[in-house]
Amino acid sequence: MMSIFEELESEVRSYSRGWPVVFDRAQGSYLYDEDGKAYLDFFAGAGALNYGHNNPALKRALIDYIARDGVTHALDMFTVAKRDFLQTFQEKILQPRDLDYKVVFPGPGGANAVEAALKLARKVTGKESVINFTNAFHGMTLGALSVTGNSMKRGGAGVPLVHATPMPYDNYFDGSIPDFLYFEKLLEDSGSGLNEPAAVIVEGVQGEGGINAARIEWLKALDDLCKKHGILLILDDVQMGCGRTGPFFSFEDAGIKPDIVCLSKSIGGYGIPMALTLIRPDLDVWEPGEHNGTFRGISPAFVTATEALRVYWSDDELEKSTKAKGERIAAAFQGIVEAYPDANLFAKGRGLARGIEFANGDLAGKVCAAAFERGLLMETSGPDGEVMKVLPPLTLTDDELTKGLSIIDEAVAAVLN
Amino acid sequence: MMSIFEELESEVRSYSRGWPVVFDRAQGSYLYDEDGKAYLDFFAGAGALNYGHNNPALKRALIDYIARDGVTHALDMFTVAKRDFLQTFQEKILQPRDLDYKVVFPGPGGANAVEAALKLARKVTGKESVINFTNAFHGMTLGALSVTGNSMKRGGAGVPLVHATPMPYDNYFDGSIPDFLYFEKLLEDSGSGLNEPAAVIVEGVQGEGGINAARIEWLKALDDLCKKHGILLILDDVQMGCGRTGPFFSFEDAGIKPDIVCLSKSIGGYGIPMALTLIRPDLDVWEPGEHNGTFRGISPAFVTATEALRVYWSDDELEKSTKAKGERIAAAFQGIVEAYPDANLFAKGRGLARGIEFANGDLAGKVCAAAFERGLLMETSGPDGEVMKVLPPLTLTDDELTKGLSIIDEAVAAVLN
Amino acid sequence: MMSIFEELESEVRSYSRGWPVVFDRAQGSYLYDEDGKAYLDFFAGAGALNYGHNNPALKRALIDYIARDGVTHALDMFTVAKRDFLQTFQEKILQPRDLDYKVVFPGPGGANAVEAALKLARKVTGKESVINFTNAFHGMTLGALSVTGNSMKRGGAGVPLVHATPMPYDNYFDGSIPDFLYFEKLLEDSGSGLNEPAAVIVEGVQGEGGINAARIEWLKALDDLCKKHGILLILDDVQMGCGRTGPFFSFEDAGIKPDIVCLSKSIGGYGIPMALTLIRPDLDVWEPGEHNGTFRGISPAFVTATEALRVYWSDDELEKSTKAKGERIAAAFQGIVEAYPDANLFAKGRGLARGIEFANGDLAGKVCAAAFERGLLMETSGPDGEVMKVLPPLTLTDDELTKGLSIIDEAVAAVLN
Amino acid sequence: MMSIFEELESEVRSYSRGWPVVFDRAQGSYLYDEDGKAYLDFFAGAGALNYGHNNPALKRALIDYIARDGVTHALDMFTVAKRDFLQTFQEKILQPRDLDYKVVFPGPGGANAVEAALKLARKVTGKESVINFTNAFHGMTLGALSVTGNSMKRGGAGVPLVHATPMPYDNYFDGSIPDFLYFEKLLEDSGSGLNEPAAVIVEGVQGEGGINAARIEWLKALDDLCKKHGILLILDDVQMGCGRTGPFFSFEDAGIKPDIVCLSKSIGGYGIPMALTLIRPDLDVWEPGEHNGTFRGISPAFVTATEALRVYWSDDELEKSTKAKGERIAAAFQGIVEAYPDANLFAKGRGLARGIEFANGDLAGKVCAAAFERGLLMETSGPDGEVMKVLPPLTLTDDELTKGLSIIDEAVAAVLN
Repeated sequence: MMSIFEELESEVRSYSRGWPVVFDRAQGSYLYDEDGKAYLDFFAGAGALNYGHNNPALKRALIDYIARDGVTHALDMFTVAKRDFLQTFQEKILQPRDLDYKVVFPGPGGANAVEAALKLARKVTGKESVINFTNAFHGMTLGALSVTGNSMKRGGAGVPLVHATPMPYDNYFDGSIPDFLYFEKLLEDSGSGLNEPAAVIVEGVQGEGGINAARIEWLKALDDLCKKHGILLILDDVQMGCGRTGPFFSFEDAGIKPDIVCLSKSIGGYGIPMALTLIRPDLDVWEPGEHNGTFRGISPAFVTATEALRVYWSDDELEKSTKAKGERIAAAFQGIVEAYPDANLFAKGRGLARGIEFANGDLAGKVCAAAFERGLLMETSGPDGEVMKVLPPLTLTDDELTKGLSIIDEAVAAVLN
Repeated sequence: MMSIFEELESEVRSYSRGWPVVFDRAQGSYLYDEDGKAYLDFFAGAGALNYGHNNPALKRALIDYIARDGVTHALDMFTVAKRDFLQTFQEKILQPRDLDYKVVFPGPGGANAVEAALKLARKVTGKESVINFTNAFHGMTLGALSVTGNSMKRGGAGVPLVHATPMPYDNYFDGSIPDFLYFEKLLEDSGSGLNEPAAVIVEGVQGEGGINAARIEWLKALDDLCKKHGILLILDDVQMGCGRTGPFFSFEDAGIKPDIVCLSKSIGGYGIPMALTLIRPDLDVWEPGEHNGTFRGISPAFVTATEALRVYWSDDELEKSTKAKGERIAAAFQGIVEAYPDANLFAKGRGLARGIEFANGDLAGKVCAAAFERGLLMETSGPDGEVMKVLPPLTLTDDELTKGLSIIDEAVAAVLN
Repeated sequence: MMSIFEELESEVRSYSRGWPVVFDRAQGSYLYDEDGKAYLDFFAGAGALNYGHNNPALKRALIDYIARDGVTHALDMFTVAKRDFLQTFQEKILQPRDLDYKVVFPGPGGANAVEAALKLARKVTGKESVINFTNAFHGMTLGALSVTGNSMKRGGAGVPLVHATPMPYDNYFDGSIPDFLYFEKLLEDSGSGLNEPAAVIVEGVQGEGGINAARIEWLKALDDLCKKHGILLILDDVQMGCGRTGPFFSFEDAGIKPDIVCLSKSIGGYGIPMALTLIRPDLDVWEPGEHNGTFRGISPAFVTATEALRVYWSDDELEKSTKAKGERIAAAFQGIVEAYPDANLFAKGRGLARGIEFANGDLAGKVCAAAFERGLLMETSGPDGEVMKVLPPLTLTDDELTKGLSIIDEAVAAVLN
Repeated sequence: MMSIFEELESEVRSYSRGWPVVFDRAQGSYLYDEDGKAYLDFFAGAGALNYGHNNPALKRALIDYIARDGVTHALDMFTVAKRDFLQTFQEKILQPRDLDYKVVFPGPGGANAVEAALKLARKVTGKESVINFTNAFHGMTLGALSVTGNSMKRGGAGVPLVHATPMPYDNYFDGSIPDFLYFEKLLEDSGSGLNEPAAVIVEGVQGEGGINAARIEWLKALDDLCKKHGILLILDDVQMGCGRTGPFFSFEDAGIKPDIVCLSKSIGGYGIPMALTLIRPDLDVWEPGEHNGTFRGISPAFVTATEALRVYWSDDELEKSTKAKGERIAAAFQGIVEAYPDANLFAKGRGLARGIEFANGDLAGKVCAAAFERGLLMETSGPDGEVMKVLPPLTLTDDELTKGLSIIDEAVAAVLN
């Protein structure tokens, strides 16, 4: 029953290679294949399903909206659904955090949010060059790809990727080199040959890059550096925003206010495409229609997005629970690390973005395969796939967490013993 | 009640400027604002709503799927919903047309389909350069924008847009110059300075560019030219596919089989983001994951897409009705042209993509505004917005069409008299 | 005695392949190989030796200067030799032609003059894009190469050549298409996708491109077009300046005053490297040292340049004689064309830049080889080397011309009969 | 008598601003202005006059050649003068050093040598990206400029300079960071985002960058790194070759054999333009004529180049004397450094490329001005012009050196006291 995929779908497909079953239904932390087998999902749509699959509260709002023939597709027209979303976003997210942003609806996905951010930063500053970081991941469209690190994905561009210079992300040299030593020297030396950058683009925690969590003080220092040199700071919170690390934004604990913030994945709440680019009001120099697109006003996503904000971001319960569960995973992973002292494992992450770095991608891949056999979905990340990564729904129960950790224990044991 | 938009939404918003009401519900050919006022929609989501707003058949399938907790978001995992779509797409679309393509799910929107097409064409050929056409529109991400014509939108890139050379689209010189004269000469002259192109990207009918319909024989000749010179032909059918011009693909009547086809907008059927890049099987040289993205497996869109194919593409009724209604509009528009002999109007288009070219964008804009006042939504296109453009749902009734044409008559009269 | 070349010199060498002798001495219109065999030189250093080899008047000035220890190398310091040159250039060239330019010494060769011109045009306008013409040749450095047409030479760049769009040179379509039809339409259509150009770069007669002489009215119209659209006009007179077409500048007869003019090759008079970029005074926005280089003040070249201006440009004798000799060649070539009606020959050129186009590069190459055997040096040009090209010293005698034409007659006959 | 310069010469001129006199004659280590005032030249044509002005031995050969009507200009034809040069270069330079290179004549100047090197490296490897170093200087044409560090000069390009990434040159962090730490990590991390480089381009001693002398072991390690990663090593010896640092090539003491070497400036010996690109024989993949140019066969430069090799490179006297004089300067400069302990001076350099770094460019500029008043020519370098730089002729006498050092002493004292 999988022959149609092999026959018709391009070889570019990837997740289906590690999980060769056909999924049918999903609820909460579980996916079910067409034979009814349940899989505990510690991948959660690569961070797009922070509130779990088919979250009942959001599902109710969604079905109601569809049933009453609410507008589905509205480009950038004014709609009741968009108004509700904007009001709720302002009330639940921006105002309580004392953040002052205007909202761009840049298109349906995270890459659109990044493309809009880069375009605006360049337009505002009149400069072309952007600083990205080692092992960054920002998307697959040409602009987003040019600031992405992975060499295989870059190779897919088919044109030289220019206008970006990579700088070492936090801890790239294991703390042996002062932060930003190289970056700052190049900026200050008028003979360095570094093109003066319009912007820096950074993730609070690098998910695809290997669950690398930048320290709070590193983010703060980056913000200072940008301010000092008149460089715009773009925070790509596509994967790590919407509570993945605990607070709504991954950068909140650093106390910084980036000039531009990219959101997507879980902002829609239910897995329907939606993206936002938040911009400092004084940067709002677009001409009407200068950036546009067909899928900027998908009302069903606005409806579930709004409901998610109301349900989960009216108080700090989700943030606290995310941090607490994150600590449980951290402790469990540290236990694994210590249980295999010769394996050179390393526990990483923040909030509910966690990982264990293995000696190589082969080992990490085998652990994920062993977990899949035991009914747990998780993926690798990092330049060589050497990091076993978990991104469970923030809404998973303690029991589900216990069960997942226990499968991980078994899977690691099966591979390393 | 619109202050939140002004306060919070970026100045880049555009459609809401011409239609300053807040839409709430929609059904078939109508949108309703929050006060219940009905608007006959001759814009149809810029071509994303070929089957009308909240089409009842699709709505039923969609609610059923959501209600039964079908997987919503699945990246590129195998799902029952994707399998159904692939099988139906093969059965209803590819096989009957004797088309042999593999399917890439490139991301949620049309620009993703275009970016994937360009990346693949460059990877396969090892060449960077692409030929686009005057007044082309392919999207707002950096790769898609580089092959788009509009200078205001290009200016938004903030970096020089390179690797593309524009050639004259069909009828660019009103028939006074042999087709492809310049293009072919540059290709054949090894001293021309034209970078050898990997691909040509073309729309069967240019929607945003001004409802410019390429002649069948021009498309055929373009295909011949590409074959002769070993250039890949990318047909961007994002707006004109899914029956907009009559047949499912806008290029069918030309009898050509492009190497790569981009679909989005109406492929999902209900307005939920979805996109496809169809590629000649031997071009499928991607590495697994070389192009990826979060929103490539939105099952609700697969469900409505599948239902739309079943309902509308099991026979040729829709195609016939689209052509017939298109002819009605053509006749009506020709009547308008002839009624104002001094106004230098020009009727354009094919199928249900139709337009009237005015002397300038100011006049066309005023006609659209007059139509809006009378309860009809339509937009301008063309480099200076000089074309009044209609893209009604293919499912509109004859009465709705009559009503719409009558409003257009009044609107034109109000402006030109 | 040629083994050292084969052993040590790169395969990139080219002229030596067609003329496999070792040259030793030269005088006037003749080169002599080491065995004393004389070759009548109808190539003249590809236009660098308009006053012949080792012109006695210039030679005297040169030896005197060297003998008295005049400064040889002076970067951009003030020198007596440079002052003499500037004064003489102003007096003999600029003032009589009512031309108001400032002089940049851009480096030793023509490519430097072109690179400086492009840099300045982009700096002044803030735009990156440049329009070049089919079959243009402007040099081999990256900037100059990007506006050069030849695909083999472009391929040598190793990076995509961007920021330039080729337009059809005069007569590219044999007069069947109105001049600038395509260029002007693209400029006027804001949706054309043409990047707004900083400048147009053009040769008055294309030498390497195949001895294509632009008509006076075409140059005039190009100048008008540039003025109308605020585009800077760069006239590359590296090969066709210094009297090659009759007047000192190839554009004089068109009555235009380009914004920037590039000179090199024969400006030094004796074959020692020298180049000038002439710029409209209000374009002189360089910072001191913003463009620099080691070989910008080669005084021996200034000395011979000055002497050449004094000897040959104090009256219009050289211009008249060049035109007259040019007409002799034109008539002779037309005779050849008519003598071989089936060969599809075509006589081309202006002044003493003349050529015969053959059906293909093979034939033209054979004619040059046959001429070489008979003691005449001439080369091919054009995209496929299909043009037999003559660029004799402007100072050649009537007898030398007679002899050269007679050898050409024989060579053509040997190949075509 | 200087008004013609102000009237006619572009504002881009620079050296003449610090030395506002008109030079006329020159001999050995001295330049003379038109009033007969002598200036001891510690600048030597920015390294183009290693054998002094109008060196008598070379002058004799030059005048003889001109007088006997030796071919002056010969493109890339075979000539007796070129053969003599190639044989002598092989015998005096390549063979004794066990170096195996083929010779490209890339055009008249150093930028041509660099452009040819970059083109070839990209063609051979099929990669576009090049690694350059902080404060590198390689020339002003677009390709060479893209690997040059100075931001003012880069700004002159008018297009974004891409395809190059700067890495820290030796001692960029004062020895606090292990050599190549960052470079090597980026190369080894497939997720770093560094485009895989075709080549590294480096100067043995950075002249324009501030007389930064790379340590022997750093050059060795760079060579190892390149070999390990399959990156071509381009050694730009345009300024530091031809004996400037002691040995003929600046890299000899490191015992490395770069893949490509660029020579110009003093290779011609007398200040007449000439340049070479030396390439590993197996890299000689050019098509005939794929890189060409008018001024590649300037025989007078071949004649003086050949004579210079014979006179100065038949034994190791010049090398020894250069090192000895270099040590004298080093000692003298160290004395100055120590004499002004509060001024934070720093003595730099190798061989006869020496400098003193001042606290800022203003001070260094004042010292040069004070020296000029005292009859000594020297210039500043470094990103802010903070280095007082001396590049005297290698042939200067001990007395001249004594005199120069004494003027420098006075000039420093005049500024710092």
